[in-house]
Amino acid sequence: MTGAAGHELPVTMFAVFGLAKALEEFCERIGISSVVGQILAGVILGPGLLNYVQPNELLGVLAELGVMFLLFQVGLEVKASELVKVGGTATLTAVLGVAVPFVLGYAICTAWGSTSIEATFAGAAMVATSVGITAKVLAAQGLLHMQSAKIILAAAVIDDVIGLLVLAVVSGMAEGSVDYTQLGTAAALAVGFTVLIAGFGSHAAGRLARRTESLRVAESEFAVAMVLLFGLAVLSSKIGVAAIVGAFLAGMMLSESAGQRLHDLTYGVSELLVPFFLAGIGLRLQLSIFSNRSTLLLGLAILVAAVVSKVAGCGLGALASGRAEAIRVGVGMVPRGEVGMVVAQIGFGLGVVSQELYGVAVFMAVMTTIIAPPLLKWAYRDAAPV
Amino acid sequence: MTGAAGHELPVTMFAVFGLAKALEEFCERIGISSVVGQILAGVILGPGLLNYVQPNELLGVLAELGVMFLLFQVGLEVKASELVKVGGTATLTAVLGVAVPFVLGYAICTAWGSTSIEATFAGAAMVATSVGITAKVLAAQGLLHMQSAKIILAAAVIDDVIGLLVLAVVSGMAEGSVDYTQLGTAAALAVGFTVLIAGFGSHAAGRLARRTESLRVAESEFAVAMVLLFGLAVLSSKIGVAAIVGAFLAGMMLSESAGQRLHDLTYGVSELLVPFFLAGIGLRLQLSIFSNRSTLLLGLAILVAAVVSKVAGCGLGALASGRAEAIRVGVGMVPRGEVGMVVAQIGFGLGVVSQELYGVAVFMAVMTTIIAPPLLKWAYRDAAPV
Repeated sequence: MTGAAGHELPVTMFAVFGLAKALEEFCERIGISSVVGQILAGVILGPGLLNYVQPNELLGVLAELGVMFLLFQVGLEVKASELVKVGGTATLTAVLGVAVPFVLGYAICTAWGSTSIEATFAGAAMVATSVGITAKVLAAQGLLHMQSAKIILAAAVIDDVIGLLVLAVVSGMAEGSVDYTQLGTAAALAVGFTVLIAGFGSHAAGRLARRTESLRVAESEFAVAMVLLFGLAVLSSKIGVAAIVGAFLAGMMLSESAGQRLHDLTYGVSELLVPFFLAGIGLRLQLSIFSNRSTLLLGLAILVAAVVSKVAGCGLGALASGRAEAIRVGVGMVPRGEVGMVVAQIGFGLGVVSQELYGVAVFMAVMTTIIAPPLLKWAYRDAAPV
Repeated sequence: MTGAAGHELPVTMFAVFGLAKALEEFCERIGISSVVGQILAGVILGPGLLNYVQPNELLGVLAELGVMFLLFQVGLEVKASELVKVGGTATLTAVLGVAVPFVLGYAICTAWGSTSIEATFAGAAMVATSVGITAKVLAAQGLLHMQSAKIILAAAVIDDVIGLLVLAVVSGMAEGSVDYTQLGTAAALAVGFTVLIAGFGSHAAGRLARRTESLRVAESEFAVAMVLLFGLAVLSSKIGVAAIVGAFLAGMMLSESAGQRLHDLTYGVSELLVPFFLAGIGLRLQLSIFSNRSTLLLGLAILVAAVVSKVAGCGLGALASGRAEAIRVGVGMVPRGEVGMVVAQIGFGLGVVSQELYGVAVFMAVMTTIIAPPLLKWAYRDAAPV
């Protein structure tokens, strides 16, 4: 039989998947969201506690694939027409959900004594939403049919486009110049791509589905869906938005034509890989933030601001849907996940963000993903699953 | 949404998966085994032709996971008791299937002018069977119920244990000394592990399955199966046999208790990942072998010897099952896949195998996997699928 080079792959998969599932079981039994258990598996195995597993390329591949399949699978449950319907509310939600956290983060860091550019990066790190966590919670509880779920998904797509622009601006500022022509092109491409797929994707996918039937390749529907998924992920990442936006749009394109078999096979892949995405977030947490009282205070202040500003900003944006739904939208936009970390990392790499503030951004990003699932459970306590 | 670092993952997945599926479709239409199409996708994209994709860690991870899931899935279709029944024939098949290729490879290389130690490595590279290819062909055609399929699977497990010992001996020879105590321990552990799982695994898995029902974790059967799969892969690779032997044994343990849902979810994972395993083999092929007439002749001689010696050796071993089944067994053991490459690579790393002979071993390993599927189709032309 085939002799693999090392033990690394099976050992890592056994440790991460095994502990994630064990803690998922534990959390289910004590009534905490199972998503939290899986993130904690990463905290426990990683540099945060045992330091048995470090973030590496293997885990990075599994996590990235995991979140792509998660968003693809969520896309399969959502019709484009429904997202377009909430487009206005979602846009307002996204814009306020970017502006309020940015201003609050900037203000806190300036008060703490950061330079203006460092405070700008801190604000930018608080902008982007990691919709994977919320999507996982809502999908697991059968709540994707709620209007608030649709606003969250649409706002997250728009949020990502705005986040791309914010990142380009602050990176440009740190490097000394912002290229507004390039910025405008990127924005136009990103918006055009998203609108095109959301508007005409389902129709194109319906035609594709009829052609797929005549293919002789095994599991042709799944094969074609995967090609579409990877293809749109490539396009979106070339344009500058995250690959998972493409994955989500690919799922949404197929949502009206997808058969049960496609759902089942996709589900198998995400059941295997999503724990690596969740644990991968926890794996980033380092306890260096607790080494210094002033940093710890800043960390807590930023964390509270990150939660409050998204709930308030996004909630305000979604107020047209009623108060209960607006709070759900606000809570759903709280998790920052790895996006905030990437922004802070870029600033750190450019030498304008200190090691301390980088640690604070990672702390904020991980903790918002741990806090969000219980908050979501509370916000949706009266909602009926399907 | 989450901003991934690079475009590499979606681009690579799109190119490899997309071309593999396109060539699978093409091969199905012209009546060639679809496995060949997927291997050719690797040859075309890789250093063999376009040099657009190089073997890298990302593809290595996907390929290794792919072959693990393939063997797990094949294991799910096979009952341990049925493998034990063919144990005697399989042992003879494995032993002759190791001895004949080794002797023939050694003889050809000596005649060509290799040193004795280089010829030993060449012989060793021709020993190990890559059962993944045959398993994929037989599973896709619904032929796993045949007695010859069971002999092939059991012989491949035994072959892997023998291959481990041969590799330890030749590596020891190249380094100057063979540690027979360590060798004996490794052999005893490997045999003990395999016999234990094959003999008592199903019973243990049945008890495990009853306990699984009370778990609250989502898709508990799948979660437990994955933990078993990775756990046995870890154990087997720690003992020294390939991780995929553990994966196969894990599947076999569950074959009597597995529900349809476990089959479906596992199937989704292998549908996604197996193309990367197949294309990954083709990716290794380099055309350097054609640069020199003498090397090319050696390559062709080794290739012919690799095919003939396995068919003859294994066929002879399985003769008790009748002539038609014996030929099928022999043909099924032909693919060498990456195992042969690993052996040659170790010899190359130790400085006892020349660059030329390394290229020959890779050529032999890739070509046997391309030749085997059509040969299998021919050998099983009168067999009825279920």
